[in-house]
Amino acid sequence: MDPSKISLPELKNLTTDNITDNVHLINTHNNPSPRLSYILDRLVTHLHDFARETRLSTGEWMAGIQFLTQTGQICTDVRQEFILLSDILGLSLLVDSMDHPKPTNLGVTEGTVLGPFHTHEAEHMGFGSNMSQDTEGEPLLVICTVKDTKGNPIEGIKIDIWETDSTGHYDVQRPEVNHGKPDGRCVMTSDKEGNFWFKGIVPVSYPIPHDGPVGKLLVKLGRHPWRPAHMHFMFEGEGWDRLITALYVRGDPYETTDAVFGVKDSLIVDINTVTDEAMAKQYDVKVGSKLLTYDFVLVSEQESSALRNERAKAALEKLGRRVKIVEGLPVPDVD
Amino acid sequence: MDPSKISLPELKNLTTDNITDNVHLINTHNNPSPRLSYILDRLVTHLHDFARETRLSTGEWMAGIQFLTQTGQICTDVRQEFILLSDILGLSLLVDSMDHPKPTNLGVTEGTVLGPFHTHEAEHMGFGSNMSQDTEGEPLLVICTVKDTKGNPIEGIKIDIWETDSTGHYDVQRPEVNHGKPDGRCVMTSDKEGNFWFKGIVPVSYPIPHDGPVGKLLVKLGRHPWRPAHMHFMFEGEGWDRLITALYVRGDPYETTDAVFGVKDSLIVDINTVTDEAMAKQYDVKVGSKLLTYDFVLVSEQESSALRNERAKAALEKLGRRVKIVEGLPVPDVD
Repeated sequence: MDPSKISLPELKNLTTDNITDNVHLINTHNNPSPRLSYILDRLVTHLHDFARETRLSTGEWMAGIQFLTQTGQICTDVRQEFILLSDILGLSLLVDSMDHPKPTNLGVTEGTVLGPFHTHEAEHMGFGSNMSQDTEGEPLLVICTVKDTKGNPIEGIKIDIWETDSTGHYDVQRPEVNHGKPDGRCVMTSDKEGNFWFKGIVPVSYPIPHDGPVGKLLVKLGRHPWRPAHMHFMFEGEGWDRLITALYVRGDPYETTDAVFGVKDSLIVDINTVTDEAMAKQYDVKVGSKLLTYDFVLVSEQESSALRNERAKAALEKLGRRVKIVEGLPVPDVD
Repeated sequence: MDPSKISLPELKNLTTDNITDNVHLINTHNNPSPRLSYILDRLVTHLHDFARETRLSTGEWMAGIQFLTQTGQICTDVRQEFILLSDILGLSLLVDSMDHPKPTNLGVTEGTVLGPFHTHEAEHMGFGSNMSQDTEGEPLLVICTVKDTKGNPIEGIKIDIWETDSTGHYDVQRPEVNHGKPDGRCVMTSDKEGNFWFKGIVPVSYPIPHDGPVGKLLVKLGRHPWRPAHMHFMFEGEGWDRLITALYVRGDPYETTDAVFGVKDSLIVDINTVTDEAMAKQYDVKVGSKLLTYDFVLVSEQESSALRNERAKAALEKLGRRVKIVEGLPVPDVD
């Protein structure tokens, strides 16, 4: 580059006390994006304050560098250790709850963490299909509806569903079992009554992958890596706020200490039993089969977006920051 | 693990407002290390506040996850992209300045960023050795001393020295040139007069590696990747605070916009010329050769440590945090 074309404020003699302001200056001076400027401003402020408040030592800094490097290096197409890290630090839950706010008192289904095991490989299946090839799992009939806040069924919603096998592993974690083909996951589309139903297995508790840097961190913190038994659901449809959620099996021993903070009372479900002969016949299962039913409620994109902006404004005003919302996201209001 | 042995506080129904306190609770409850507890407490607080203040969207969060993953994946034995990231965000400079504080007004040589190119491969060389095999570089005679704050020479200090070749690349960046052998770097030991001297080449400006995630980030921020010409030095000896520093060539076009914030006035040096026949003969160079001289001043480990503790206490008191210093590092004082 031609140094004569540099247009940047002068930096030099940077110290503990003036480094932060100088980094802000250089990050914003030629930055074409007010949103990126704002994100970097907040990121650098918090990163530096973290170091200042802990008086982070060079050795600790290097341990952090090595931890982040190892976290990146263990990632593959089917393993996302940084998402795991975000999950166990509560960041994933926080981001989801801000980005997909739910109006209170309208019965809207709450969201929860996506986790690192959603894939785009699942087959689209017809109602009643069995998404699990695992013969060791306990068969489970799942009957659901998807409706709006007024109780109207929503047709044509794309639903991603995924769960582990009976050993607590997702298909991508055991490619040798299913020969790399999707298993324990499917995609369905709700019908005009908002129905969808399928067969899977009763979810089991499982540890998040803990043979990597995140697992080692949990050990150092005296935390266990377990998640209570659950089944993941994701709902997408034009005009509807994307809902990422999961249903948790009531009474799981890890119900109150989920390693990734995902459990909410409204998402805890009972596993029932099919007792009715007619029902068993209708759904092609045996009497005595395990049964899970749930009615999901979506919020419109418009409502969710309005609520997101409203809460963003309120939160930032409370923090004393003058912001304006540009393309749905806050930037400093410098006018 | 046996769930009956879990001793953790109950978590559930976590929201934007209560997630942070709950993560603190689970991170500290069984954590045997007060220092690690404190670090995680500050890390999670700042991480969550960053997300709250920016109202970080799911898309931005995922962009961050991917950025960190790519940053980890480009790292090799000879490339450390996370150190680069820390450097361009001013964190490296901040950590060094806190961990290796220098008393003012005693003439102690200031420290600066280590950078990602120090290796442990450099050869120990005798005085007068030429550490650069680069015949395109302009030869430079470097004559230095290392003393204490009272002007007494320090014998037996191990000095690591490293610089780029004339194309602005460190040896590890161009293994094809030097067949994987160290070049442009050496280790020396100061003699009883505190002297050490060697031959290298006149340093040149160079861009930090910018073909990876960090380079892409700089482009987005409207920042250039250049560092002004400099030569790195690291001093180690029992009883002396390790000094990581560098000397910058005066008048470099990037002197005031160093991509990694390393330049300090006291570290800017003139490149002179050997004019004296006797000196030329003594050091086995030609009259007219380029010359760099510098007198480094070290501070004792004891002084540095006392200063570090004093500044840590003062800074944390100013922040209103009650801390105590354990093994040289602050932890909350909960007594």
